[in-house]
Amino acid sequence: MLYSYDVLRNFVLLAFQRLGVSQEEAETVSSVLLEADLRGIESHGIARLRRYYTGLKEGYIRAKVQPEIIRETQVSATIDGKAGLGQVISCQAMELAIEKARKNFLGFVAVKNSNHFGIAGYYSMMALKEGMVGVCTTNSEACTVPTFGAMAMLGTNPLSLAIPAGKDIPFVLDMATSVVPLGKLEVKRRLGQEIPPGWAVDEKGDPTQDPNQVITNIYSNKKGGLLPLGGEGEILGGHKGYGLALAVEIFSALFSGGLFSRHTYPKDNKGNSLPPNIGHFFGAIRIDAFRNLSDFEQDMEDLLCELRTSPRKEGQKRIYVHGEKEWLEKERRLKEGIFLPKVVEDDLSSIASDLGLSFPS
Amino acid sequence: MLYSYDVLRNFVLLAFQRLGVSQEEAETVSSVLLEADLRGIESHGIARLRRYYTGLKEGYIRAKVQPEIIRETQVSATIDGKAGLGQVISCQAMELAIEKARKNFLGFVAVKNSNHFGIAGYYSMMALKEGMVGVCTTNSEACTVPTFGAMAMLGTNPLSLAIPAGKDIPFVLDMATSVVPLGKLEVKRRLGQEIPPGWAVDEKGDPTQDPNQVITNIYSNKKGGLLPLGGEGEILGGHKGYGLALAVEIFSALFSGGLFSRHTYPKDNKGNSLPPNIGHFFGAIRIDAFRNLSDFEQDMEDLLCELRTSPRKEGQKRIYVHGEKEWLEKERRLKEGIFLPKVVEDDLSSIASDLGLSFPS
Repeated sequence: MLYSYDVLRNFVLLAFQRLGVSQEEAETVSSVLLEADLRGIESHGIARLRRYYTGLKEGYIRAKVQPEIIRETQVSATIDGKAGLGQVISCQAMELAIEKARKNFLGFVAVKNSNHFGIAGYYSMMALKEGMVGVCTTNSEACTVPTFGAMAMLGTNPLSLAIPAGKDIPFVLDMATSVVPLGKLEVKRRLGQEIPPGWAVDEKGDPTQDPNQVITNIYSNKKGGLLPLGGEGEILGGHKGYGLALAVEIFSALFSGGLFSRHTYPKDNKGNSLPPNIGHFFGAIRIDAFRNLSDFEQDMEDLLCELRTSPRKEGQKRIYVHGEKEWLEKERRLKEGIFLPKVVEDDLSSIASDLGLSFPS
Repeated sequence: MLYSYDVLRNFVLLAFQRLGVSQEEAETVSSVLLEADLRGIESHGIARLRRYYTGLKEGYIRAKVQPEIIRETQVSATIDGKAGLGQVISCQAMELAIEKARKNFLGFVAVKNSNHFGIAGYYSMMALKEGMVGVCTTNSEACTVPTFGAMAMLGTNPLSLAIPAGKDIPFVLDMATSVVPLGKLEVKRRLGQEIPPGWAVDEKGDPTQDPNQVITNIYSNKKGGLLPLGGEGEILGGHKGYGLALAVEIFSALFSGGLFSRHTYPKDNKGNSLPPNIGHFFGAIRIDAFRNLSDFEQDMEDLLCELRTSPRKEGQKRIYVHGEKEWLEKERRLKEGIFLPKVVEDDLSSIASDLGLSFPS
């Protein structure tokens, strides 16, 4: 059924507080999760509450830890997240990048020892209110095969860029460097549908349309997995998607000294989860390092307008700019509410009951 | 037939000098062109000499101009290229980015009023000798359609990243954000072959396999064109390639105040070519802004080794890392020579004759 933003956010806020998280941490993580639901990226929203619930219960996500700056210059920093909540570490890291850019035009911050941080676009968009360009990448659990490979070696490794556009809707690119994120396969599996050819390969590296096979492989033995953007082989540019995924891996895990996607989510001898050590990378760029912001924004308005009004393929109603669909969806959902399917409602009720809460509160 | 690097470079050097270019400019542009031939990117090498010959003859590429820094901070600059040779402007811009990074950890430089600069990878790789990460993007003549579009609105808009890898071959990503660069269609047309489905669309925005139709459209009316990485529509992520192309457009043309791809290569009332006003973006990032270079390099060696030795799809002999094929090709061609097909030899002979030279000299 439909829920208002406030009802859902309040529930998430209470749930996190019951899990031993500080008021401030709970505010941050609930804002990030609900922003995903508002923008129509349900795979990264409240439906993932159990992931954080389990992480905090089992201790591989730690509450009330203070991320530590382990290296710093006027325009850069490296942060050890100390296995805290990915959202909390990431908001602090992006604020630091913005603060450095405010003073010195550019700010880049690498992060290690973090957890899953939700949607990359949340952090890149933080730069928009300052009239800056925001940059964000992260690695993740390995689920993407390299070109010609048969084993998941790289994460879905998303990258996000947010760029102010004056009176127009900001440009917000927020994309997995795999053809699709894993969440799209989970949806197909739930619906009992095949996935389209070109999304994934099986344990031999051959094409498959069975989402269950792909997901099971990724979570058990890493054999097979998602294809990089551009698909299989090199004919349609699969090596480019693989290159982008690898670049994101290097910026996220190697700049910070974190672990490769392949080694995140380690377990101890008894099979218990250890902190994942996910790495992120954040950047803020002041436009006026290069040009007057107002001139730039005027050009952005013109460019986006030219794209939207350009000739369309027959039958197509609209040419979009990145971030526009999500912007419109957010406006709609703030008015009409956020729909949660039964399976998510049941899961939230079960978490609520474990925490001595009720859903909806 | 096969030619040695020295013979070809010397010929290009002489040809540019006869075209009124300074010794220093000629050295730069011949190095960039021949590096493409060495790395196996023939589409951007000596075969394109006529493009520069025509540009210099017609005056829309200008010799002996001094690019001007029009805005500058400790970590950034914007350069007006004054319609000079793209390669010359770009080497100066990248040197400036590196110089700023040397002093202040990061350096980013935007360029407007430039010409086609050859391979993006040349400039990103300049950072490697300093143990820095190099970044480079450029816009170009419009030849890529946006998702759901039927008109070429964006360039092939390549991006390049070069990252040092210690004792291993550096990671060098150098990719058009379209499925393929235009050069690949030119090759197919020359061979009288169809292009694979998924590379391009016709004037209605419908899929086509006729390279001649696509190229003719791009150069006449911009209807149809190349598809962005990820292909048609959104199923296989075409909107992601479109987003990357748009991001490159913004970094290259809007940061610098240049022209959108759609408006590069303008003509005057009489149909004469005016300077194209291509925009570029260059960056240099010191690794030790985040982490000790030696630790980073050790991790790069480990990551690249893990990728190369990971399980392969049956029948595949090797998993590559980006830049490796080109590195190996360069080693081979330096020893065995660079092959030029008859059509290129004839063209070079014709240019030589016009300039009072002989090919090979």
